[in-house]
Amino acid sequence: MKLSFLRSACGSLRVHSRSRVSGVTQRCLPVAARADCRWIHRAAGDSSSSGTSPKLAVHSGKKSWNKDVFELDTSLKEVVQSTKESMVALQRRNPSIQPVLAIIQTGEDDSLLEINKKMAGKLGLNITQICLAEECSEDEIVEELLKLNEDPRVHGVYLHLPPTFLTSRVLDTLKPEKDIDGITDLNIGRLIRGDLSKGFVSPIASAILDLLEKHNAPLKEKTVLLVGGEGPFAFSLQFLIEKSGMVASKTNWSSRDLQSQVMQADAVVLLGAGNMNVPPTWFRPGTGVIRCESMLEPGDHATEMSSQSELWYLAAAYRTQNVVRSCSRWIQGKQYQQWSLRNLKLQPLMPVPSDIEISRAQIPKPVVQLAEEIGLLPEELESYGRNKAKVQLSLLDRLQTQPDGKYVLVAGITPTPLGEGKSTVTIGLVQALSAHLKLNSFACLRQPSQGPTFGVKGGAAGGGYAQVIPMEEFNLHLTGDIHAITAANNLVAAAIDARMLHEATQSDKALFNRLVPSVNGVRRFSPIQISRLHRLGINTTDPASLTPQEISTFVRLDLDPSQITWHRVVDTNDRFLRKITVGQASTEKGQIRETGFDIAVASEIMAILALADGLEDMKNRLARIVVGTSRSGQPVTTEDLGVSGALAVLMKDAIKPTLMQTLEGTPVFVHAGPFANIAHGNSSVLADKLALKLVGQDGFVVTEAGFGADIGMEKFFNIKCRASGLRPNVVVLVATIRALKMHGGGPNVSAGTPLPKEYIDENLSLVAGGCHSNLRKQIQIAHQFGVPVVVALNVFKTDTQAEIDLVCQIAKECGASDAVPCHHWAHGGRGSLELAHAVNETANKPSNFQFLYNIEMPIAEKIKTIAQKVYGADDIELSPAAQAKIEYYNQQGYSSLPICMAKTHLSLSHMPDKKGAPTGFVLPIREVRASIGAGFIFPLVGAMSTMPGLPTRPCFYDIDLNPVTEEITGLF
Amino acid sequence: MKLSFLRSACGSLRVHSRSRVSGVTQRCLPVAARADCRWIHRAAGDSSSSGTSPKLAVHSGKKSWNKDVFELDTSLKEVVQSTKESMVALQRRNPSIQPVLAIIQTGEDDSLLEINKKMAGKLGLNITQICLAEECSEDEIVEELLKLNEDPRVHGVYLHLPPTFLTSRVLDTLKPEKDIDGITDLNIGRLIRGDLSKGFVSPIASAILDLLEKHNAPLKEKTVLLVGGEGPFAFSLQFLIEKSGMVASKTNWSSRDLQSQVMQADAVVLLGAGNMNVPPTWFRPGTGVIRCESMLEPGDHATEMSSQSELWYLAAAYRTQNVVRSCSRWIQGKQYQQWSLRNLKLQPLMPVPSDIEISRAQIPKPVVQLAEEIGLLPEELESYGRNKAKVQLSLLDRLQTQPDGKYVLVAGITPTPLGEGKSTVTIGLVQALSAHLKLNSFACLRQPSQGPTFGVKGGAAGGGYAQVIPMEEFNLHLTGDIHAITAANNLVAAAIDARMLHEATQSDKALFNRLVPSVNGVRRFSPIQISRLHRLGINTTDPASLTPQEISTFVRLDLDPSQITWHRVVDTNDRFLRKITVGQASTEKGQIRETGFDIAVASEIMAILALADGLEDMKNRLARIVVGTSRSGQPVTTEDLGVSGALAVLMKDAIKPTLMQTLEGTPVFVHAGPFANIAHGNSSVLADKLALKLVGQDGFVVTEAGFGADIGMEKFFNIKCRASGLRPNVVVLVATIRALKMHGGGPNVSAGTPLPKEYIDENLSLVAGGCHSNLRKQIQIAHQFGVPVVVALNVFKTDTQAEIDLVCQIAKECGASDAVPCHHWAHGGRGSLELAHAVNETANKPSNFQFLYNIEMPIAEKIKTIAQKVYGADDIELSPAAQAKIEYYNQQGYSSLPICMAKTHLSLSHMPDKKGAPTGFVLPIREVRASIGAGFIFPLVGAMSTMPGLPTRPCFYDIDLNPVTEEITGLF
Repeated sequence: MKLSFLRSACGSLRVHSRSRVSGVTQRCLPVAARADCRWIHRAAGDSSSSGTSPKLAVHSGKKSWNKDVFELDTSLKEVVQSTKESMVALQRRNPSIQPVLAIIQTGEDDSLLEINKKMAGKLGLNITQICLAEECSEDEIVEELLKLNEDPRVHGVYLHLPPTFLTSRVLDTLKPEKDIDGITDLNIGRLIRGDLSKGFVSPIASAILDLLEKHNAPLKEKTVLLVGGEGPFAFSLQFLIEKSGMVASKTNWSSRDLQSQVMQADAVVLLGAGNMNVPPTWFRPGTGVIRCESMLEPGDHATEMSSQSELWYLAAAYRTQNVVRSCSRWIQGKQYQQWSLRNLKLQPLMPVPSDIEISRAQIPKPVVQLAEEIGLLPEELESYGRNKAKVQLSLLDRLQTQPDGKYVLVAGITPTPLGEGKSTVTIGLVQALSAHLKLNSFACLRQPSQGPTFGVKGGAAGGGYAQVIPMEEFNLHLTGDIHAITAANNLVAAAIDARMLHEATQSDKALFNRLVPSVNGVRRFSPIQISRLHRLGINTTDPASLTPQEISTFVRLDLDPSQITWHRVVDTNDRFLRKITVGQASTEKGQIRETGFDIAVASEIMAILALADGLEDMKNRLARIVVGTSRSGQPVTTEDLGVSGALAVLMKDAIKPTLMQTLEGTPVFVHAGPFANIAHGNSSVLADKLALKLVGQDGFVVTEAGFGADIGMEKFFNIKCRASGLRPNVVVLVATIRALKMHGGGPNVSAGTPLPKEYIDENLSLVAGGCHSNLRKQIQIAHQFGVPVVVALNVFKTDTQAEIDLVCQIAKECGASDAVPCHHWAHGGRGSLELAHAVNETANKPSNFQFLYNIEMPIAEKIKTIAQKVYGADDIELSPAAQAKIEYYNQQGYSSLPICMAKTHLSLSHMPDKKGAPTGFVLPIREVRASIGAGFIFPLVGAMSTMPGLPTRPCFYDIDLNPVTEEITGLF
Repeated sequence: MKLSFLRSACGSLRVHSRSRVSGVTQRCLPVAARADCRWIHRAAGDSSSSGTSPKLAVHSGKKSWNKDVFELDTSLKEVVQSTKESMVALQRRNPSIQPVLAIIQTGEDDSLLEINKKMAGKLGLNITQICLAEECSEDEIVEELLKLNEDPRVHGVYLHLPPTFLTSRVLDTLKPEKDIDGITDLNIGRLIRGDLSKGFVSPIASAILDLLEKHNAPLKEKTVLLVGGEGPFAFSLQFLIEKSGMVASKTNWSSRDLQSQVMQADAVVLLGAGNMNVPPTWFRPGTGVIRCESMLEPGDHATEMSSQSELWYLAAAYRTQNVVRSCSRWIQGKQYQQWSLRNLKLQPLMPVPSDIEISRAQIPKPVVQLAEEIGLLPEELESYGRNKAKVQLSLLDRLQTQPDGKYVLVAGITPTPLGEGKSTVTIGLVQALSAHLKLNSFACLRQPSQGPTFGVKGGAAGGGYAQVIPMEEFNLHLTGDIHAITAANNLVAAAIDARMLHEATQSDKALFNRLVPSVNGVRRFSPIQISRLHRLGINTTDPASLTPQEISTFVRLDLDPSQITWHRVVDTNDRFLRKITVGQASTEKGQIRETGFDIAVASEIMAILALADGLEDMKNRLARIVVGTSRSGQPVTTEDLGVSGALAVLMKDAIKPTLMQTLEGTPVFVHAGPFANIAHGNSSVLADKLALKLVGQDGFVVTEAGFGADIGMEKFFNIKCRASGLRPNVVVLVATIRALKMHGGGPNVSAGTPLPKEYIDENLSLVAGGCHSNLRKQIQIAHQFGVPVVVALNVFKTDTQAEIDLVCQIAKECGASDAVPCHHWAHGGRGSLELAHAVNETANKPSNFQFLYNIEMPIAEKIKTIAQKVYGADDIELSPAAQAKIEYYNQQGYSSLPICMAKTHLSLSHMPDKKGAPTGFVLPIREVRASIGAGFIFPLVGAMSTMPGLPTRPCFYDIDLNPVTEEITGLF
């Protein structure tokens, strides 16, 4: 039976019977012809409980009107219009976005699919059609679904499949956020529970509801009878009908009361009728009737489309609307998300247990959950077990337009050899900000070396109730960054020695044949070799065209063994490797030389990791590393060695910061940890940048600089901020009564010996002396950079109230914006609340950041500026060696690099025993070196150890593992 | 109004009005007194759409009967009985299991809670009650829910909370598998879709349905009217009613047709009536009426319980049943799961692209998905990014009773220096077994060293269309195991030299004071020191009681610098570290000595990792490592150095195998990779054990042994199988035409020079010669161990059909169970189908495994046995040094260790240029060493290099990273 539709002036449709289609009886159709039956749609409704929404059957017939269907129907027009508007709004904000509807189908397109494609096309969607064979397997559908689930370009999936394919497994596979037909359990449940904010409503149910609502005789509080609706589709429809104020009533085709039910109904929706029908006489005059069928009729898809059903188009329009909505939600999900941080409760014990006991007593949130709470997308996270994850740098692109949060640097006064607790202050502060003041905050910490963990110092995850947890994971391999640095560093070293051996034992020709081998008769330079040729001024890429002289220049790096600055590294305190002789095996043919190992974190590659602001920048810095000079005095780089690409490959994961959490469940980035003397001693630029985006405009990123403010802070400003372009809002200057007493004239403090009594008993005059000397000077240093200072007094149990009050008073007199005592070690974030308030207040004051020196100043001038303005020296004195090196760097064009002073941290001067604020001294510059890859010149003021040793009884004596519980003991 | 219930003889209840309770009008109650109204329950139904199931109101009153409610009611009795039976069955199979119902409530227990607790208690559940304050926050509820979600002891969560607390966020937080009230969206959707296999049905809806079904006048096809049911609970109930064959009809309290609807109904369920009611006269005689209310009445919980409602008890019983069901599903989930492996489709190209191109063209499944497919539990997995995960050893406990699968070893004939493709055969075989024959299989591979990756050899992830993907992750840091070994190994080295320095520069007393320091006035030995004291025969744990002689013995390891066998390691081909002098810095006070670095995978710690069968075993082996001998000839261990606990800590994650996948999506374990000469060259015991459990009884684990069968296979049997207790079913012996021709007398084959034409053109006589010599001998070796052999001929494109046929024919003549050509490199698993069939068939034949030698034989006898039976030597010749060492090991009690021969892999003999099957030679044993921690003696036959070098143009020249796409190029 073929149908055609006529639309009356009042907007309702009249349906005329025209002919018969085999197999399906259309007994209801005479009813439709009755003028008072307002509209009849013959559509497909799935009455089974197979979990699918119905398919609409399309019948072809002679075209009876020429107007575009879109112009005829108000409902359709409205949906199309509103979808169009959403689309325009979407694309205005995101010009590159193009919503995509994916269709999985078996066999060829049928008419229904054509309607949907037409609609999607009209509204500007792209379509991905996956056509499976009609006898395809469930596995194939699942495989396609999994791909579509993961494909970020696809925003909606339309399973245009026979109901038998819509199995639980298939439906369970489809991601609910792409289920634009609302057929997954979760979306059905959401609808039934009335939560329409996340799921999708069946487009066909929406279309039917629309038609019911547009019925000429309003159906509010009237009865709509659903005949034959046992499946989830019928429940969805029933819910929508009831929600819109009609009374839904359901019956099935075999009900004995069907007639009376139909007679009483104000509207009837016939679902999955198949060859069932309702005699026309059963309908009361004025009854609205909508007919849905479950299956397309054979042959339908082959026939010409000419009479089109409002319902089918309407459903297609709602489906398209759902795709646009899905796309819009997807984009919304990529916007900056407010945090919903769930804090971990802290119940501090007295006396304070050991660090590992405190850490173990707190169960961290799974890192994926923490990541979700702070607005990271699942695809931005790479978990390393349950408690750690690397965060992808693509976050910076995603949140490009998000304003940065406030940037806080934690620095310290000149410390005693015992350390004054900058890390615990940092962690205590973010615990207070996030968990107590409910201000988003992030701590950015350095990754500790394993050397000290097993040596003298122990771990570096904070301490007491201000820790990063699990502290053992923080202190051990973490996510392998230091191991990657070790591997990269030592590959360079192996390449240097091997190359020297090969150059020493081979002719130019042999070297050339090996370096540029003939592969299948063709010689080619690799890209890395072409770079070297360019640097050498050889502008050919054809190996055959090099002159013998050019070949010689190309193949011989001609490294001067006495001028190799590159050391090997291990992440172990191995003092016996400080100075070694290598190449003593006979296989190395007498090419012995002296060299040494540094601790891994002293590698220039660590400094590069800390300063890089992206993968490309890191790669370029790695390629610029100078490992030594040739006998003719030319710098030799890692690129000359052909190893720079491999370095980037080894470091490609290390560049992503690692997310962990504090004891109170607030987020922490752990990333990079360069030495604070021969390098700049700050955590990574990238971690700070990611964190500044994540905390949002009113949030805080608290980052820590190594050593005292004269070193760590100065380098933070002049090197790190110069590299990153970031500007700090506040400096938190950490002081202890202990260190202040030392600066005030107290006796020596050293590790391993008991503290003299001056440090245990109250002594206000020593405290005052320390405040007026070192503390005042360090505050002044920060002020030279134009940044306000909050003094954080890290309180020990021996400190008296009078001492505490005195420090706070003098600190404020010295110009600190505020000065407060901190009790985070014993009390966690609650103990740092005062500090958090002070930082929050100070951060909102204007800051007027400026560098200490212009980068274009001559090297010696830059050194002198730091010596005078920061250290308080009268002048500097350059050794002849230093002088010569500066001239060499000037020649090589390295003069515009910032300065990274390698000076003791135990005094503002170069003399570790001069406490307070020494004056009247000349700073001797013994030597000047450079890390060209990292991008700084480092003058040496005295001898710097780059390899710690193990004591007689290292920490490892107490470190053990319970093989049953897997618990670690003895870490601190 | 207080009620009491009387049960009539026929099992129905009569309800009498007794008194009034303030606030709620009970106008319906007179109805209940009508004899023909079968049953009335006054219960609580939530009529709002807040997403919760209703609460039952409990009214106290005078007890009117004394019998236990459980004895009175059939429905209740049935549910209780069936739950009890489930519980008994559950606990019979899992005696330690105790299902736990967690309750989150605000305020104190009310009567309803008491009923639930009573019911749960009666049925043997444990209860965890979380009582929050009445004014608690959503956050607190979410926090508790998150804990309960993660707590494996809790099987069901009952949110006994006012409806306002049941927000979307709370409901979205609750894990659907613990939602025993069926109130989460997913569980509602599952019910509505009719999939009852996974979710939970509301206990109250179940109870109501039960009562309806037990109605005296059967309600099949009769109308049940739900009054006032708009929320999800009503939909659930409606679904259940319709499913059981009744006709559900819904209306609301304000319906104008309420009276006629009630009059027509055969049963009426009054939901959330509050103070609404239905006049008794509206009910037809015989109508069943159930009344539910949404809220508990004030004061209810304080009054004595005496009249109990069937419905409330029934709901409580269903709730308990759901908890037991949940527990049972949880246990079921921990049983061995059949695999549902989804294979990745492979569409091989011709010509075969580069390895990295093939690897990159295939998108691996997320490793969490792969893990789920092979029946791993989420908590057994520690993801390292998207593509790799470590698997916890607890799996072995969980699947303790699961029978192992078949165990297949891939070994090879004596190879050419180019390698004959054992790894690709291994990977091709599992691809064929899993993806094509649908037989579960696992490949267990060694983790490659990064040295060769950047040196000469390239990666080791297989090749062509038989690879582990992503190959760059396989070849680079993987999950950091080798880095952990490097760190552990070098900590030992640093400890050795530091200790020697300290002993050389300190008195006994000073050493003792430092090694056993006084902490707060108390000296204590650490556990590791007590172990040393025991070994020294000093049986005190009081530091004060040691004699000066004992102190000296204790503090001085007195290592003989010339007898230190421990080397440092790096995972880099750094030949200049083969022999070095350390300690040359002035800080080391002249304590210089010669030593060397090995490549990291040559560390004894790697061999330990490969042989350990658990954390405790690994820890014990690490503590047994002998690093050298004292001047008095005593072995000095890592435990003597105090470092063994720290080693275990450093290695605690490395012990977990890493899960990856092949190009066809089949699972692979990558774990450990000890050297094949100075160690045993096999992947880990633990990976094999885990895999054998996972594949199931009919599945296959294919593991690979390094070098030729004379070395790798012999060590696999005599060392690895001895350590693991596992017994192999089949040996796959890999051969190539190339290697066979070499053994047949072909010219030299060496890396870097073109193959002579004999290897490119057909040459049947060379092939035959190789088959009759080397291949025959290698087959015989396997047969000596009683294991059947399948020869896998790894086909190259130059091989002719006649050559291939010849090899297969001779191999079978030599006793191979089967011999087949393999084309995995060009075709993936499909190319190895013949091999897969052959292996499957052979694995089902009996195998009669036996060791080659008794472990208690003298060391020299064991060496001789291997030399004669495996290598074909006439005898062995021990150097005096070797002889002396054997005597020393005998003295030290090390004679019962297996033998790990360090011999060239290029010949069956010790002479690399003797191809085929040499005879008539005497095997010279130059030296004998031991890895006491790993647990083997290794005789050196010739010089073994443990540190490869870099060539003039190492692989790294071509390795690069695209900083934008993050794609790696140049790896192969």
